[in-house]
Amino acid sequence: MKIAVDAMGGDFAPHNIVAGVVEALREQNRITRLFLVGDTPRIEAELAKLGPRDPRLEIVHATEIIAMDDPPVQAVRRKKDSSMCRAIDIVKRGDADAILSAGNTGALLTAAHLKLRTLEGVDRPGLACLIPSPDNVFVLMDAGANLEPHPINLVQYAVMGSLYSRQIVGYKKPRVAVFSLGTEEMKGNELTLEAHRLLKLSDLNFVGNIDGHDLFANVADVIVADAFVGNAVLKACESTARLIGRYLKEELKKNPIRILGAFLARGAFNAIKRKADPDEYGGAILLGVNGICIKAHGASSPKAVKNALRIAVECVEGQFNEHIVEEIKKLHDKLQQTKSA
Amino acid sequence: MKIAVDAMGGDFAPHNIVAGVVEALREQNRITRLFLVGDTPRIEAELAKLGPRDPRLEIVHATEIIAMDDPPVQAVRRKKDSSMCRAIDIVKRGDADAILSAGNTGALLTAAHLKLRTLEGVDRPGLACLIPSPDNVFVLMDAGANLEPHPINLVQYAVMGSLYSRQIVGYKKPRVAVFSLGTEEMKGNELTLEAHRLLKLSDLNFVGNIDGHDLFANVADVIVADAFVGNAVLKACESTARLIGRYLKEELKKNPIRILGAFLARGAFNAIKRKADPDEYGGAILLGVNGICIKAHGASSPKAVKNALRIAVECVEGQFNEHIVEEIKKLHDKLQQTKSA
Repeated sequence: MKIAVDAMGGDFAPHNIVAGVVEALREQNRITRLFLVGDTPRIEAELAKLGPRDPRLEIVHATEIIAMDDPPVQAVRRKKDSSMCRAIDIVKRGDADAILSAGNTGALLTAAHLKLRTLEGVDRPGLACLIPSPDNVFVLMDAGANLEPHPINLVQYAVMGSLYSRQIVGYKKPRVAVFSLGTEEMKGNELTLEAHRLLKLSDLNFVGNIDGHDLFANVADVIVADAFVGNAVLKACESTARLIGRYLKEELKKNPIRILGAFLARGAFNAIKRKADPDEYGGAILLGVNGICIKAHGASSPKAVKNALRIAVECVEGQFNEHIVEEIKKLHDKLQQTKSA
Repeated sequence: MKIAVDAMGGDFAPHNIVAGVVEALREQNRITRLFLVGDTPRIEAELAKLGPRDPRLEIVHATEIIAMDDPPVQAVRRKKDSSMCRAIDIVKRGDADAILSAGNTGALLTAAHLKLRTLEGVDRPGLACLIPSPDNVFVLMDAGANLEPHPINLVQYAVMGSLYSRQIVGYKKPRVAVFSLGTEEMKGNELTLEAHRLLKLSDLNFVGNIDGHDLFANVADVIVADAFVGNAVLKACESTARLIGRYLKEELKKNPIRILGAFLARGAFNAIKRKADPDEYGGAILLGVNGICIKAHGASSPKAVKNALRIAVECVEGQFNEHIVEEIKKLHDKLQQTKSA
């Protein structure tokens, strides 16, 4: 399989991107070609530090870079020769199966949607994140792609998120829930109430509503929400974790006894950091477009890039998008039957 | 001033409610009468444990209780003799200035909205929460009252939330922000983009968009959002804090060295718990209804009930609702001028 990588996107590009790609090529012999798209001299310089060059690597020159704070739509429209747009173009032409970028999220979502178009039967793509919790790993979707979704979009997310959970996490029958303000069936807004009604008619393993309190309580493996809510929840969780980390650091330094205590207990703090390590799952995936589109975290380490590429490989190999098209068709047939019945 | 308290609502009612009320009466000589509404024998039994009875206390008998998991609308409609409904009725009749309940949130919002009606000029009430962060205390609103808000509702929340921040936190010119997916002005959905536009026209100290990443970064003192998002953010923060607490407990017990370390550093953990103590701010307030309506947390301790009553007293004393009516009128005049200009 062939993969295109935006070498210039992300807070530590091109260094971390190139290093992650080189690590991934060592592990993944299923990748037959990897396009590193961006500023050739800078990519060459990074590669030179990393030993003999893998023959599967091919540098594709691009003169522009979409910055992390560029306005997405304008950036995609104007920076046609950006590393991100060029990488997506390779997939669009059919010369690669997947694209990975750690750059500007909005621009990636826009460019992928515009250039790759949606899969047959999918109305709008959605961004899916894998989130580790103590007793399960769940998919949260949409984390920021589709700002004014209709109920059917949420139902399609549920289908795509379930397939993703099966493919990547390995759950046989992922439990699907709608994110709402409470767990009771009648709680929600117009969007979630109608999505709830439709999901009950589907063949998915639908378990009802979930609210923020039960996020980590192992009650659902796929949680669907509109982009605004999904994005808010993700960022609120990150902010809270950072806040507690800051409090811990401050408080544990306040006197010599606490410093000693923190030193003795340091294994516990490191274990918790590992549990919440975002690098482990390597990023988010835009589901519903023609091609596998992975969004690695802006601050991705080489390890995060490597793991994100592993997800790309598994999706391509598992014919993930072909399964989405099949399952979305089944869903629509089922909903159609119920309507006419 | 006179206050009505739902003695039967909450996870530890009537015990914690009655105990909190008794503590509050000791501190607050501005309360001239306090109605404890609920099952007389059970309230009497709690009071008997707490020493000589304060003469300002009056028990108002109610035969029913709205349970925490009762469907809100039906509960309010059917349980007319519930402690919650009866307590609100006292405010409705003008016999009390404020109502406090730690019971079913949805039922309280429904009953208060239906019975007390909105203040002049306010279209929809919103639930405001005070959230402590390292460098400021901010108001998040709406946390769950108004499920399908219009942009003007968010602008009215901003006015009411600002007044609340001035009244209770003491900020002179609270910074107001719209919760969105990113800090850039053009980021948002139809609701937030239009609210953003209107807020720029207002006289509030509007600082633009905030996203979940900056929640605790001291960039805003009043954050407005639709109920769904506000509720999701609050609960996601709580879930994350609980998750980290659980991880810490598990990891710090794993071997004797860590146990010793945790023991030496215990002061730090206790300090952090105190910083995030929800009892300190005693609950949320429903802004925009005729009467002060305080929702204490379901699991409120006596201290939380006491602090919630302190907020009620400060709002009544500060003629809080009168100020809301004035400021909302000014807002509408200003928006009208801009329109005709």
